[in-house]
Amino acid sequence: MQRIEHVAVVGGGVIGLSIAWKAAAAGYRVRLIDPAPASGASHVAGGMLAPLAEAWPGEEELLELGSASLELWPEFADELARAAGRESGLRREGTLMIGVDTADRGELDGVAGHLADLGRSVTRLTGRELRKLEPSLGPAVRGGLDVPGDLAVDNRVALEALRAAAAAAGAEFVAEAATRVRPGAVDLADSAVECDLAIISAGARSGTLHPALAERIRPVKGEILRLRRRGTALPPPVRTVRGPVHGRPTYLVPRADGGLVLGATQHEVGFDTEVTVGGVRDLLGDAETVMPGIAEYELVEATAGLRPSTEDNLPIIGELEPGVLAATGHHRGGFLLTPVTVRAVLAMLRGEEPDALIKATDPSRFGGQQ
Amino acid sequence: MQRIEHVAVVGGGVIGLSIAWKAAAAGYRVRLIDPAPASGASHVAGGMLAPLAEAWPGEEELLELGSASLELWPEFADELARAAGRESGLRREGTLMIGVDTADRGELDGVAGHLADLGRSVTRLTGRELRKLEPSLGPAVRGGLDVPGDLAVDNRVALEALRAAAAAAGAEFVAEAATRVRPGAVDLADSAVECDLAIISAGARSGTLHPALAERIRPVKGEILRLRRRGTALPPPVRTVRGPVHGRPTYLVPRADGGLVLGATQHEVGFDTEVTVGGVRDLLGDAETVMPGIAEYELVEATAGLRPSTEDNLPIIGELEPGVLAATGHHRGGFLLTPVTVRAVLAMLRGEEPDALIKATDPSRFGGQQ
Repeated sequence: MQRIEHVAVVGGGVIGLSIAWKAAAAGYRVRLIDPAPASGASHVAGGMLAPLAEAWPGEEELLELGSASLELWPEFADELARAAGRESGLRREGTLMIGVDTADRGELDGVAGHLADLGRSVTRLTGRELRKLEPSLGPAVRGGLDVPGDLAVDNRVALEALRAAAAAAGAEFVAEAATRVRPGAVDLADSAVECDLAIISAGARSGTLHPALAERIRPVKGEILRLRRRGTALPPPVRTVRGPVHGRPTYLVPRADGGLVLGATQHEVGFDTEVTVGGVRDLLGDAETVMPGIAEYELVEATAGLRPSTEDNLPIIGELEPGVLAATGHHRGGFLLTPVTVRAVLAMLRGEEPDALIKATDPSRFGGQQ
Repeated sequence: MQRIEHVAVVGGGVIGLSIAWKAAAAGYRVRLIDPAPASGASHVAGGMLAPLAEAWPGEEELLELGSASLELWPEFADELARAAGRESGLRREGTLMIGVDTADRGELDGVAGHLADLGRSVTRLTGRELRKLEPSLGPAVRGGLDVPGDLAVDNRVALEALRAAAAAAGAEFVAEAATRVRPGAVDLADSAVECDLAIISAGARSGTLHPALAERIRPVKGEILRLRRRGTALPPPVRTVRGPVHGRPTYLVPRADGGLVLGATQHEVGFDTEVTVGGVRDLLGDAETVMPGIAEYELVEATAGLRPSTEDNLPIIGELEPGVLAATGHHRGGFLLTPVTVRAVLAMLRGEEPDALIKATDPSRFGGQQ
């Protein structure tokens, strides 16, 4: 790579903001291009940092990548808080996985067994033990797993901190939409931002910006609800609570301010961010099965975002052609995978080899890129 | 009453806007005082004009008042459309009452019997006959009543028309909050609006403005959802569909643009306009029982408003003391009762006796006023 001075980051979600912050702090002249930073899927997200609870046989590379990134999170959060002069939003209370019916508990047994095979252990808990840890869990919760290492972050608190840290480090915000990314420049509607290196971190829309990503990123819609505890309602759980509820993935992620995030549906329906009646009905119904007390909570917000997904559920991090990097396709794991992604991108900026771990995310794995 | 020139209307809901329009059009100099007109309970409302479907033994005066007002609606709507130069929002497709279980059908029999006793007839329909009229009704709907005379109005379309008509007629909008109403003036935070006559139409907050209303108006919270049909979803019903669903009052009110309004909960919890999880769960569940196709609809909005309710469910229309009129306490019937209320208030402005019907709404019925 040539000597890099000017870096253009396309997309102001958690990945783009983090790259902009760290690159600017490292002395690069950074412009972040986004018509509305911190407003897309990162804004809608639940913010779980949960590689173990999401471990799936056949996705060992993703588990390794997620575990490595989770290990980096506490230091990343501390640095962020210092750089931004405000809280990072990281919560360290851990995760409980729960199940309701026999099939759910079978699924949890599968997760526990898979993690044991990989040398990671989790503790099985009865319904009674779960309710001792989290008294708000309802009688329908019959068993589960304690996964203390899986954390969570308040996505909106983190985004505001990242935006502040990027600005403080000298990153410049260009409030326009990119139409195309090419070596040496990012095209906007009527002009272009010139740069030595362009980085595409534009989430589900990344595929529209460069031909090598065209068929690689597809939007997976997720609906999510935000609740707030009202006067006399039971307090939310302290830990993240997630699990299959009658087979449906369900999570309840508590916030520091009495808020509770409920997620998330998964629909492959293109660029559609409308919240449906069926989605809300399922989210509320499943969450109420887990925690009956939410009936008294306020429903503050119902939103939908688009996860940028790839065929192998791994992100796409690496060079698309000289002068153009991708750091996108993080599917359900944008927040989790941020520290490891940013570290890899910064290594590439310096012309160094990134972590061996990151090899699995190279765009060349699809074979078709230029 | 002295000769009246300056009229101050406190409250810019459907009642206040309508009085302001009609009074300004009649030549009075009108000021309408509201920090945010058309934003309170009238904005949240479903807009049903349904005296028959809401008829209740013991509330014959309310039925008479509602029926008289409903008769005035078509002409009121035509005048409004002409005065505003835009649509009034009135829909003339009528109402179906439906029931799901045996107890619901018993309740409908009671309504039909009560109306028959009063000389009004409604037609009983089987589930099959109902689905012939409205194919979107689900198999759980077992029987019902055809109430073609009960209409509906798109409350937000009507409010915008009323605001335009009032402005066109010369009413002046004072965007401040009233703190007290007394003969000769309406007090604001730092000033006062002087007037020959003040009219209190401030909904659930009317009780804070004048001592004679202090214990007379209580807020009854109602949660309501707004849906919109998505691409492939079944169209909404053409008529308003309402009924007891497993004993719970439920209504689906279609809008001209593919929208569908679902209401409404009733909670006596003071000045609380937060939307609860339990309320949304019940509204969606009951509506989906009636019309399974809503699962594919977009959930556009969840809001709550405060009905201004009185102990006998009749509004309070009349003089509180010389120079101060009340036109408030319309409970669930603000839109329905608007034409008859406005006609009565205009008669009072001219120093005439209002309709005999309106006698039942006189503030003196409570005995305690000054």
